[in-house]
Amino acid sequence: MRTMAVVGTGLIGTSVALAVSRRGVTVFLSDRDPAAERTAAALGAGLARPPGEPVDLAVIAVPPSQVGAVLTEAQERGVARAYTDVASVKAGPERAALRRAPEPARYVGGHPLAGRERSGPLAARADLFEGRNWVLTPSGLTSDEAFERALELVALCDAHPVVMHSGDHDAAVAVTSHVPHLMASLMAARLGEGPAGLARVAGQGLRDATRIAAGDSRLWGDILQANAPAVAGVLKDLHADLSRLVPAVDALAGGGEAERDLGMRTLVDLLDRGISGLAGIPAAGHARTGDGPGGVARERHGVLVRVAERPGELARLIAAAADLGGTAEDARADISGAGQGLTVRFAAPAGTADRLVTALAADGWDAVREDGGHPVREGSKGHRETRIPTA
Amino acid sequence: MRTMAVVGTGLIGTSVALAVSRRGVTVFLSDRDPAAERTAAALGAGLARPPGEPVDLAVIAVPPSQVGAVLTEAQERGVARAYTDVASVKAGPERAALRRAPEPARYVGGHPLAGRERSGPLAARADLFEGRNWVLTPSGLTSDEAFERALELVALCDAHPVVMHSGDHDAAVAVTSHVPHLMASLMAARLGEGPAGLARVAGQGLRDATRIAAGDSRLWGDILQANAPAVAGVLKDLHADLSRLVPAVDALAGGGEAERDLGMRTLVDLLDRGISGLAGIPAAGHARTGDGPGGVARERHGVLVRVAERPGELARLIAAAADLGGTAEDARADISGAGQGLTVRFAAPAGTADRLVTALAADGWDAVREDGGHPVREGSKGHRETRIPTA
Repeated sequence: MRTMAVVGTGLIGTSVALAVSRRGVTVFLSDRDPAAERTAAALGAGLARPPGEPVDLAVIAVPPSQVGAVLTEAQERGVARAYTDVASVKAGPERAALRRAPEPARYVGGHPLAGRERSGPLAARADLFEGRNWVLTPSGLTSDEAFERALELVALCDAHPVVMHSGDHDAAVAVTSHVPHLMASLMAARLGEGPAGLARVAGQGLRDATRIAAGDSRLWGDILQANAPAVAGVLKDLHADLSRLVPAVDALAGGGEAERDLGMRTLVDLLDRGISGLAGIPAAGHARTGDGPGGVARERHGVLVRVAERPGELARLIAAAADLGGTAEDARADISGAGQGLTVRFAAPAGTADRLVTALAADGWDAVREDGGHPVREGSKGHRETRIPTA
Repeated sequence: MRTMAVVGTGLIGTSVALAVSRRGVTVFLSDRDPAAERTAAALGAGLARPPGEPVDLAVIAVPPSQVGAVLTEAQERGVARAYTDVASVKAGPERAALRRAPEPARYVGGHPLAGRERSGPLAARADLFEGRNWVLTPSGLTSDEAFERALELVALCDAHPVVMHSGDHDAAVAVTSHVPHLMASLMAARLGEGPAGLARVAGQGLRDATRIAAGDSRLWGDILQANAPAVAGVLKDLHADLSRLVPAVDALAGGGEAERDLGMRTLVDLLDRGISGLAGIPAAGHARTGDGPGGVARERHGVLVRVAERPGELARLIAAAADLGGTAEDARADISGAGQGLTVRFAAPAGTADRLVTALAADGWDAVREDGGHPVREGSKGHRETRIPTA
């Protein structure tokens, strides 16, 4: 790929342009706002002028509701030989392309799973897509050439291509992105109306849980409207879950013993289902393994290490194991009694467990693979178990 | 403070013990689980035996529902001259202390705003509390000596003391911690029941929004029960908000034009209230400024820098400003027209804005304080504004 056009130089469009310019592709930038277009150019994202001849690929980087119109207009002008977009909703743009665009075969929908809370070209980064999944949603009409060009774009951005049906994509992002954004907004809005002293008890957990709510509200309004049917469905499920949760918590607040026990069971069951749900999504840096809840739980194997109970000895072992990719998950006192040593259970990715054993043994530690070495899942007992829980 | 007892060597208790041991305090550890006690000792957190004589301060690090009983038992044995706890709910433990403990004057409630998703002594860190707020909730009976000892503990852990009424604390954490945890669990539970391909479209935003749901479910069940009345109240507010949101999204999915417009206004209003709510909580590292929504928005001043539109020139400026604590928030094209340069607006903490101007000018940049230099709030227009929104 030698030439590319980026239509819409906001956060994503400018980041795409920066990423491919880095690789020697000549990029032509355009934006309905001259300041955004010139800002992207000044960042080194490309040239702020139209291409003289059709480019290899045009990337439409505008909100979902505008993709159809901008794509149609670009194809009418013959801007490129192939077209893709980066909107986070895919069925609507695909329908628009099939209905209105002169050359639907030259278009394939795309959605890079990357973003920032800040928007606009000044927030753009050439490495925004590194290691992230990038969904492509070819329609029945999408040509092999258009699909190949889009795959090339994903590769140039160091992202991982994932092919999905546009409808499946939209149903999935409603759960993983659109509804979580709304719930974060609902919670963040409560912070503005909450009791005095809120800020003094706001910790990192709250910041993480609400950060996505900082996203541009007009853009998100557009995204949520474009995926409204799927979003409404998930919202109704959550509304029903919440309708069951409220009486459970009410019972804990003032019910009789039987009601309190039932309320607690309902509560802990929800918390446990949440922990299991988390095991179904890949951790950061595991994008490539993302292939349905079954496929993504990171297989981890157990390694047992015996350590003497000298103060600091265990800290030294944990540091050594961490360098080798092992996480201490549990410690058992040897039956032989106090002062006789502890056996610490480490979990490590399947691939590195044996390396961990070998390296620790070489350093003089008494380390063995756990019997059978059967995998442990993230968020499974090992992780959740606690001695005396504290908070 | 020379001697301390830590009762309950889970994540928080062991982290406290590691932090104060570092400072030369002799710590006596105890836990109903011998393995947890010996693990903490092997980490270098202290001595796994009872103190020979009363210590200066005993830290009760057990779940909220157990604080009263453990405190009472410890005071009956005369373990310490002063007592505090670290539970994330404060009214219940305070009531228990006043009702049941032999020496309520020697007790002051405490809650360090720090934690991890992993639990147990193996997850403990000596620096867990550095820079975090640590709430103290003295009762009417709390003695000056007990309060002073607790303040000393907070200082030894490099945390910031915040004094609150126990009831105000509980009402605040219901909004900032307990209900967000439940919402994260509800969303994470949906991930386990969602459509295929979920994991392939799970991004960093989802991981951040749901991370807190990984916490120990038994501990969280205990915490939520201990604060059930306040939690139930906030849950009902959220349930009502959601009841208003669902029809708005339904209208966007299938309503007439008037309904869609109304739905979009409702949606964008919620998203904007969320953004405003976020402005009310301190960002990481701003714990100390946390003093009610009014006090926490980080005052930032504007700095305007003119930059030539040579490719890469703007990137060079942004990097230079970032090193000095300035964030590029907006760029305007000069009225003089294309190719004539951009004026970039940076925001910097009040204290560093002038330093930014001076340093940039010294490097040859055309930088000035924005007229009047009036402060801009995080999450305010400057941050949210976008040229062409993209996702």
